[in-house]
Amino acid sequence: MREIAVFSGSAHPELAAEVCAHLGVPLSPARVSRFANDCLEVQLQANCRERDVYLIQPLVAPVQEHLVELLLMCDAARGASARRITVVMPHYSYARSDKKDAPRISIGGRLVADLLVASGASRVLAMTLHSPQVHGFFSVPVDHLHALRELAAHFRGHDLSRTTVVSPDLGNAKEAAAFARLLGVRVAAGAKQRFSDDRVTISTVIGEVKDRDVIVLDDEIAKGSTVLELLDRLRELGVRTIRVACTHGLFAAGALKRLAAQPDVLEIVCTNTVPVPDGERDGKLRVLSIAPALAEAVRRIHNGESVSALFDAP
Amino acid sequence: MREIAVFSGSAHPELAAEVCAHLGVPLSPARVSRFANDCLEVQLQANCRERDVYLIQPLVAPVQEHLVELLLMCDAARGASARRITVVMPHYSYARSDKKDAPRISIGGRLVADLLVASGASRVLAMTLHSPQVHGFFSVPVDHLHALRELAAHFRGHDLSRTTVVSPDLGNAKEAAAFARLLGVRVAAGAKQRFSDDRVTISTVIGEVKDRDVIVLDDEIAKGSTVLELLDRLRELGVRTIRVACTHGLFAAGALKRLAAQPDVLEIVCTNTVPVPDGERDGKLRVLSIAPALAEAVRRIHNGESVSALFDAP
Amino acid sequence: MREIAVFSGSAHPELAAEVCAHLGVPLSPARVSRFANDCLEVQLQANCRERDVYLIQPLVAPVQEHLVELLLMCDAARGASARRITVVMPHYSYARSDKKDAPRISIGGRLVADLLVASGASRVLAMTLHSPQVHGFFSVPVDHLHALRELAAHFRGHDLSRTTVVSPDLGNAKEAAAFARLLGVRVAAGAKQRFSDDRVTISTVIGEVKDRDVIVLDDEIAKGSTVLELLDRLRELGVRTIRVACTHGLFAAGALKRLAAQPDVLEIVCTNTVPVPDGERDGKLRVLSIAPALAEAVRRIHNGESVSALFDAP
Amino acid sequence: MREIAVFSGSAHPELAAEVCAHLGVPLSPARVSRFANDCLEVQLQANCRERDVYLIQPLVAPVQEHLVELLLMCDAARGASARRITVVMPHYSYARSDKKDAPRISIGGRLVADLLVASGASRVLAMTLHSPQVHGFFSVPVDHLHALRELAAHFRGHDLSRTTVVSPDLGNAKEAAAFARLLGVRVAAGAKQRFSDDRVTISTVIGEVKDRDVIVLDDEIAKGSTVLELLDRLRELGVRTIRVACTHGLFAAGALKRLAAQPDVLEIVCTNTVPVPDGERDGKLRVLSIAPALAEAVRRIHNGESVSALFDAP
Amino acid sequence: MREIAVFSGSAHPELAAEVCAHLGVPLSPARVSRFANDCLEVQLQANCRERDVYLIQPLVAPVQEHLVELLLMCDAARGASARRITVVMPHYSYARSDKKDAPRISIGGRLVADLLVASGASRVLAMTLHSPQVHGFFSVPVDHLHALRELAAHFRGHDLSRTTVVSPDLGNAKEAAAFARLLGVRVAAGAKQRFSDDRVTISTVIGEVKDRDVIVLDDEIAKGSTVLELLDRLRELGVRTIRVACTHGLFAAGALKRLAAQPDVLEIVCTNTVPVPDGERDGKLRVLSIAPALAEAVRRIHNGESVSALFDAP
Amino acid sequence: MREIAVFSGSAHPELAAEVCAHLGVPLSPARVSRFANDCLEVQLQANCRERDVYLIQPLVAPVQEHLVELLLMCDAARGASARRITVVMPHYSYARSDKKDAPRISIGGRLVADLLVASGASRVLAMTLHSPQVHGFFSVPVDHLHALRELAAHFRGHDLSRTTVVSPDLGNAKEAAAFARLLGVRVAAGAKQRFSDDRVTISTVIGEVKDRDVIVLDDEIAKGSTVLELLDRLRELGVRTIRVACTHGLFAAGALKRLAAQPDVLEIVCTNTVPVPDGERDGKLRVLSIAPALAEAVRRIHNGESVSALFDAP
Repeated sequence: MREIAVFSGSAHPELAAEVCAHLGVPLSPARVSRFANDCLEVQLQANCRERDVYLIQPLVAPVQEHLVELLLMCDAARGASARRITVVMPHYSYARSDKKDAPRISIGGRLVADLLVASGASRVLAMTLHSPQVHGFFSVPVDHLHALRELAAHFRGHDLSRTTVVSPDLGNAKEAAAFARLLGVRVAAGAKQRFSDDRVTISTVIGEVKDRDVIVLDDEIAKGSTVLELLDRLRELGVRTIRVACTHGLFAAGALKRLAAQPDVLEIVCTNTVPVPDGERDGKLRVLSIAPALAEAVRRIHNGESVSALFDAP
Repeated sequence: MREIAVFSGSAHPELAAEVCAHLGVPLSPARVSRFANDCLEVQLQANCRERDVYLIQPLVAPVQEHLVELLLMCDAARGASARRITVVMPHYSYARSDKKDAPRISIGGRLVADLLVASGASRVLAMTLHSPQVHGFFSVPVDHLHALRELAAHFRGHDLSRTTVVSPDLGNAKEAAAFARLLGVRVAAGAKQRFSDDRVTISTVIGEVKDRDVIVLDDEIAKGSTVLELLDRLRELGVRTIRVACTHGLFAAGALKRLAAQPDVLEIVCTNTVPVPDGERDGKLRVLSIAPALAEAVRRIHNGESVSALFDAP
Repeated sequence: MREIAVFSGSAHPELAAEVCAHLGVPLSPARVSRFANDCLEVQLQANCRERDVYLIQPLVAPVQEHLVELLLMCDAARGASARRITVVMPHYSYARSDKKDAPRISIGGRLVADLLVASGASRVLAMTLHSPQVHGFFSVPVDHLHALRELAAHFRGHDLSRTTVVSPDLGNAKEAAAFARLLGVRVAAGAKQRFSDDRVTISTVIGEVKDRDVIVLDDEIAKGSTVLELLDRLRELGVRTIRVACTHGLFAAGALKRLAAQPDVLEIVCTNTVPVPDGERDGKLRVLSIAPALAEAVRRIHNGESVSALFDAP
Repeated sequence: MREIAVFSGSAHPELAAEVCAHLGVPLSPARVSRFANDCLEVQLQANCRERDVYLIQPLVAPVQEHLVELLLMCDAARGASARRITVVMPHYSYARSDKKDAPRISIGGRLVADLLVASGASRVLAMTLHSPQVHGFFSVPVDHLHALRELAAHFRGHDLSRTTVVSPDLGNAKEAAAFARLLGVRVAAGAKQRFSDDRVTISTVIGEVKDRDVIVLDDEIAKGSTVLELLDRLRELGVRTIRVACTHGLFAAGALKRLAAQPDVLEIVCTNTVPVPDGERDGKLRVLSIAPALAEAVRRIHNGESVSALFDAP
Repeated sequence: MREIAVFSGSAHPELAAEVCAHLGVPLSPARVSRFANDCLEVQLQANCRERDVYLIQPLVAPVQEHLVELLLMCDAARGASARRITVVMPHYSYARSDKKDAPRISIGGRLVADLLVASGASRVLAMTLHSPQVHGFFSVPVDHLHALRELAAHFRGHDLSRTTVVSPDLGNAKEAAAFARLLGVRVAAGAKQRFSDDRVTISTVIGEVKDRDVIVLDDEIAKGSTVLELLDRLRELGVRTIRVACTHGLFAAGALKRLAAQPDVLEIVCTNTVPVPDGERDGKLRVLSIAPALAEAVRRIHNGESVSALFDAP
Repeated sequence: MREIAVFSGSAHPELAAEVCAHLGVPLSPARVSRFANDCLEVQLQANCRERDVYLIQPLVAPVQEHLVELLLMCDAARGASARRITVVMPHYSYARSDKKDAPRISIGGRLVADLLVASGASRVLAMTLHSPQVHGFFSVPVDHLHALRELAAHFRGHDLSRTTVVSPDLGNAKEAAAFARLLGVRVAAGAKQRFSDDRVTISTVIGEVKDRDVIVLDDEIAKGSTVLELLDRLRELGVRTIRVACTHGLFAAGALKRLAAQPDVLEIVCTNTVPVPDGERDGKLRVLSIAPALAEAVRRIHNGESVSALFDAP
């Protein structure tokens, strides 16, 4: 593949390496330095001139460090005469700041989109954004992928005859329905009422779940409060078995341990859009790779082939 | 003072409070929250509509946290219909990234200037920028203050009859000469050769220092390597006493302790553009306040009076 | 009120006149001409120089005519040296185009936001946007009002002892809950599955509605299909009486007649963010005026007082 | 022809089809939908990624519908990662709004140019703009064609021995002179005084027209008032025969019928930059195709060959 | 007059001084330096902070020097925190470059407009632009004055009973007609065919001039070739007396001497939008001052009063 | 070399011709016209469409003429659909205006950078900028070359056994050290105190120069005052022989004659980044060509090869 240069920030080099392996191109080295005054400097250590440059960086903790690093990488690539700069952001955490629900706050999802463009990003490759409207925060083209295909491939190995996919809330229900269609199973959804950042109540579950093998599907799991709340409701409703799946397994504040400690949770499945935090590995956890999907998207973007043809309609 | 609103980020609230006290206006509250996914949200908790808003935040460690926080504050003030947004940045650490001295790096000082403007900053109030050219990185008006007046007032209390001001390198020599003129004393300068971020050699000292009471003056002290190197050279040249002065006392990596441990260093003087790191206090350290100067500049900016009249020509 | 100039486009001059009456300022005249080649020309017929200009225009049918007219008005005000141009857009119809749910379509809500800014709009005053994320499509400050206060005042005249507010879908449930809190009554919500632009299925209703006097609350009613579908479901569930309320009563394609023809619908309540289409008046329809609210917002914007204090938190 | 994608808006699909036939590329399908709230959505139904995209749309009545449709198409192509977006606008009706001849109006020709750029247009292909200065309203490259070659080819089939080309006003006289040179005949011009949008007086005719076969040449004919006024003057001056020619045959408000009803008008010639309005066909009307010229220009733009070489100097 | 600061570039300090005298404000000093490498530096030597700044500079020869000087002044005022920067450009020479009449040239009138905005100009006050479309080249508000009132006042002192105003070409005829209306006299116009920059032919004169006292009125006289050509034609047609008037008396290449040398030219009248070149004074020349008009426009702009009310409609 | 088009402004056509000869491409013709009103027009007389366009113009006296000419060329190339526009600016004189050392002046180096971008420049190729920070004034990629390789090649022909490179001031000392390393000789530096634009004092020289063959190396020589001052100091210190070298030989105000008149100056070496002024030739002057270096940089930029690999690290 000619004229392509792929770099990784320090957020998730393993994923970047895997994407490059699938693409059959080397991962170009980038050096991140920190000065005595705590400022960062990034050097892209391969020729960018007239290249089609890809910068891979999910915005995971420490988010501010990874964000500024990414902005510096964009600017460095622009200054180095890159022909095009695609930010590959498998997890865009600031997408959750998508509305002004209190006076005099920033809509962070829009601001960070503008910062990326101000730094030189000419396009973005994102995965499972928190809300579809976040797409409209960007003034540059966005290719918006999802991981349903990968998750479905995993679950097809199970007996699905009594399976129901359950979305923890209505916001994610459309995604859950698409997933259920892929698996040929039923769908249900919790009706969530969010009271604060970490306290949630699932008032009810729409759809039949009694005696069903449920797969709880969410876009991301951070503290896991929503899912844990849903599990209580599901147990009351008499489900048979529980599996938990999500695209972004952030697992903050011991969330993975708490989920895995539930005896009736048989399996927790996520993808590698974000690295699993150190010390958060567990025997019940299964991490699926979205590197092949990202690599295929990068290949199509680079070659000018349709991306929507592959990914948009599950 | 009507129609003014001053907010502080979390980098240096003490300084902000002191500036407000001098201005005779309240420091308006701002709430910084951190979500489970490590993203920040800032809420400005006072009306900004049609106000002349000042956001006080030196870019000190953790720099990336403080930078993103500041960008969010700018955007929040803009979204809240502020009439004008002045970023008061007593220390602009990214100003040291002012040239492209290696291929494919970002000129961070320019990038961060652009990010501030992209986030809504309509003007900047800065202090003792690393190089005067950094002023030109901003596409919005910059008022560029210095602290020589404050430093001079302090040293006028000493016997200056045998005093020479010494700049550690030639880059800072113009500033040192201006300072010497203010004190009515002589000036000298080291000729520094910088080999890496923390190793420096002072090859020579230009000007007479034998048997002199020297005041070593630098713009900032981070690890302090340059100054320590200079002290060796000054001792070889037979100076009588040593005092050390700077505007930005970053004192990273134990620098203050190392300097204070030099028996012949009588005093270390800096200003409060940045907070003294916890556990870095020392009996030899004297911190001068630039809050009155910042307050006077803010007052003049707010009232449309000349700032240069007061500060530009020492 | 000094230095203010309010103009109306041709979309809803009655509302503009009413707002001006509440403000106690004259509605300045604007002339719209159409040339032989079908191009529009708008002349603002009052001095705009250094004035705080307000342009009142909901984007109702014919939407494209009203949009281009509005863009021409913005540009005319800018060229006439207006100090500030606030677009007062009580209904932003393009807000429904808020995501890219098919390949190679425009996100119209973002595009039109950009067009307004390109034409000179310096701020926007909107009402009950289709989704809160649309706020983030604008790069200029937005004041986002809602009409819950007006709707609540109306219903407080009824016996509310057995009342439940019902949202037709989960997207609007938060708004419905806020409305219910204002009235001190219960809330329920339909779980809608939208299949195409005009066919919808309400799969279930979350919350108790049997023997209740329900107020169906939606943000806008265009063809009314969603509401009609919900009414079927509510009848099956044994509600006692039905009232229908919304902010934007578009009533397209005979929607008002169809709704009013339902014998068990006692009342249909909307606001005057949009004009009621000619020939769509009905005895069951009650139109509440949001002109006082818009006037108060304009007054506060003009005077630099907090708008959020009044309207943001129902 | 690789990597090209041509789409048509709904203004003139016949012309687009003809251009594509000459280019030997398919006309890619575009779907225009209208929602219940009268908003438009356009979907480009062929891959645009890294393609050289051409959007063909003259701004004819209903102008506002066609304009917003075009803006949506530009934005859709940009969002779909088009490499370059050329707006092919054979008739730019807003070009007549090219000056501020009354206070507080918009210069529509400039505003619409800015809107096209804000929506993603990277270049424009225009034909016979109302005034040459309109070229300067665009901040992107414009290729400005004319149709004199096509018109001349048509008239070369006539006996031109006693022919004089007559421009209805002095503004168009340069164009008429160029046309006369192409035909090797004489030129004359009316001195028009325009009093309002539809009343005009031709005070005099400069140049000999007695006993001549005149070809009246204008850039566009909308209501036709100017031409009709000129015909009166020409008859008084004793012309032998009359033919009428123009590039843009808008023929608004029955203009074609009125012109054709003049017994001494032998022929009315226009091009297909705009569609002939339904019910405005007449036996005296001859429509020449500029599709070959547009196709050749598109081919040259696509291949990076000089366009001026072919079209600029008649 | 509070908060106003008026500066002059080096193009026409006399005019600036006169404007300031009429305004009753001091002309603030500006220092222009030229470095050894021929670069310019301009220092505005009065406080600009929050001031309403006016920079007076017609673009006369040496045009490039005066243009760059003006750009530097704009940027200096912006950097000095001016609240608003109005470029007062009584003669905009680049307005003649208003179309692309040859391939691969710049439309200079648009480019220079963009450069002024890029340098910080927030508005423009211009006088008698070469074509009205040039107004549309600016993306900032333009106030476009003319000098007909001043010229008319002068000629009202003459016996006008047999007077006809003659425009040298049709482009200027509308202006000439307005001028004739102001004087209550007749109007005529030459039909000019321009062959190159300095060779022109007046093919005919429309309107009666025999035995008339003619006032030839043009917008500007540079080399004067057009006027001289017209004089020949007027003499052939038997005019009684000749007077010549224009707004911009550039008088390049000895034009004034050539015109004054015509025995039948009784008077040459121009305004002081540009300085009369040294050595080009002549007894027949009468220079009218537009300083009162500029001062009144500045006063109205500063005070937010309508400018069009006074100047737009002659 | 396909798809490349190189044009020269009128500042230094000899250099442009030489660069083209090395590239093996023709120098495309450009016509510069001056109108009667002193405005410039530039026509690029070769096809630019989709070409990689290079505009060669050092900003030498008359600087303002050459600057505006260059801006017009950029805009013409943009309007002519150039794919990319690289400004080749071997001498950027405005780079000396790199800080705001007096109130209310423009930072000209930043302003001119912005003007170039506003006119269409997509990248810059510069040589030996006055300070490295000036790189950060540009918002487009800059390739920053130096001429040390060429200068070193010249001096390698001499006996270097007793040679010391001397920088006239500390600002240029890093460059001088690099040059000394290339030659394998020692380095020294003057400590300059600049008092005004043309009066300078060299207070001391750091490093041994007694009995050495010195090569004085500066980035540019304008009036030559600094070098002359240094020569006095060097003579006092007993140097053996003197040679003078610089990149930009501006030689203003008779500087070359004054330098050459020094009997102990054996040779004056500069490059052809700027043309030697007429009448400033001298037998001691040796002009080295940087055309091969510029040509190689252009070749690499055009082909997307690394430029830093060749030039950045001496």
